Amino acid sequence: MSNHTGALPLVKLIEQFERLPGIGRKSAQRLAFHVLDLPIEKAREFAGAILDAHERIKKCSHCQNLTEEELCPICADKSRDETTVCVVEDPRDILAFERTREYKGLYHVLHGLISPMDGVGPEQLTVKELMAGLSDGKAREVIMATNPTVEGEATASYLARLLRPMGLKITRLAYGIPVGGNLEYADEVTLYRALEGRREI
Amino acid sequence: MSNHTGALPLVKLIEQFERLPGIGRKSAQRLAFHVLDLPIEKAREFAGAILDAHERIKKCSHCQNLTEEELCPICADKSRDETTVCVVEDPRDILAFERTREYKGLYHVLHGLISPMDGVGPEQLTVKELMAGLSDGKAREVIMATNPTVEGEATASYLARLLRPMGLKITRLAYGIPVGGNLEYADEVTLYRALEGRREI
Repeated sequence: MSNHTGALPLVKLIEQFERLPGIGRKSAQRLAFHVLDLPIEKAREFAGAILDAHERIKKCSHCQNLTEEELCPICADKSRDETTVCVVEDPRDILAFERTREYKGLYHVLHGLISPMDGVGPEQLTVKELMAGLSDGKAREVIMATNPTVEGEATASYLARLLRPMGLKITRLAYGIPVGGNLEYADEVTLYRALEGRREI
Repeated sequence: MSNHTGALPLVKLIEQFERLPGIGRKSAQRLAFHVLDLPIEKAREFAGAILDAHERIKKCSHCQNLTEEELCPICADKSRDETTVCVVEDPRDILAFERTREYKGLYHVLHGLISPMDGVGPEQLTVKELMAGLSDGKAREVIMATNPTVEGEATASYLARLLRPMGLKITRLAYGIPVGGNLEYADEVTLYRALEGRREI
């Protein structure tokens, strides 16, 4: 392409977009042209937002969520229930839980899952920080809210073994059919889990 | 969301991605987290590419294609056939034509289409520059290669009327069924045009 547009900076910008997850060549082109068409001050805002995020965002010293402050707003919020800690893979998972407006406890972000295939062991995750956070004895229950994948399960089991000696209640999210889902399309493992976990109504 | 992540710069970065065409909220989140996870030098590259594109890219003084130089590489290429000019809406259309490796002529980029509904008239396009470029008398044929939409047709007709007095051959891209397409899915207008334009084999 570089020999067709005479604009190397444009080719480079397209390449930048192409490196983003889920963005193919056509989309990258469309996005790059769009950004090029922006007024210069809007383009500066975009570039600035990228650098700003990098410079100003750090990890909460308590739960490892992303924050600008020493403590993230959830850890800093005294009205949250300190007796419950929900362990998640990623800061995005916190957004998902917060959208339910039901969970009032604290979180801990692992920033990954144990994955021997990818060479990720517990030492690459924030396991040490989790243990340190729990050492104040305030937590009563730790909810393992990692994804229902091989890595998510392995990580949940590993942490459960590690934390059980601390006398904590360790729970796992329920499996089952998604609300609004169609039984017909549920895979057999999910359906089996939904059956297994059935409750009286 | 801003009250759930404690990271306003992250929220702002998500918003920046959300403003891009075809990027919804979930994708914007994914992209922002990805960019945040990049090593700082990669993030700087990305931000730099945005600003660089804006600072260094301008319009070719002859055909209005995007370029870093006074003339785009196509206009500067002496082996191109100066007797044919292909009029397109957008610099991206040039990429599409160049990919065919068949077209050897020059281009002219209108940077838009006539669209009274959006308040875009010929004076907002590079019509004046097209006339100026053709005034050297080298061109024999002008191919109207605007999209087969209402605006594309209107623009092609308008330009055809404008250029015909100059004694130029004015052509329009052929309509028909797309190669590799399925007749079953061709709309009736396309099929009618394909029938109308049938050729002896």
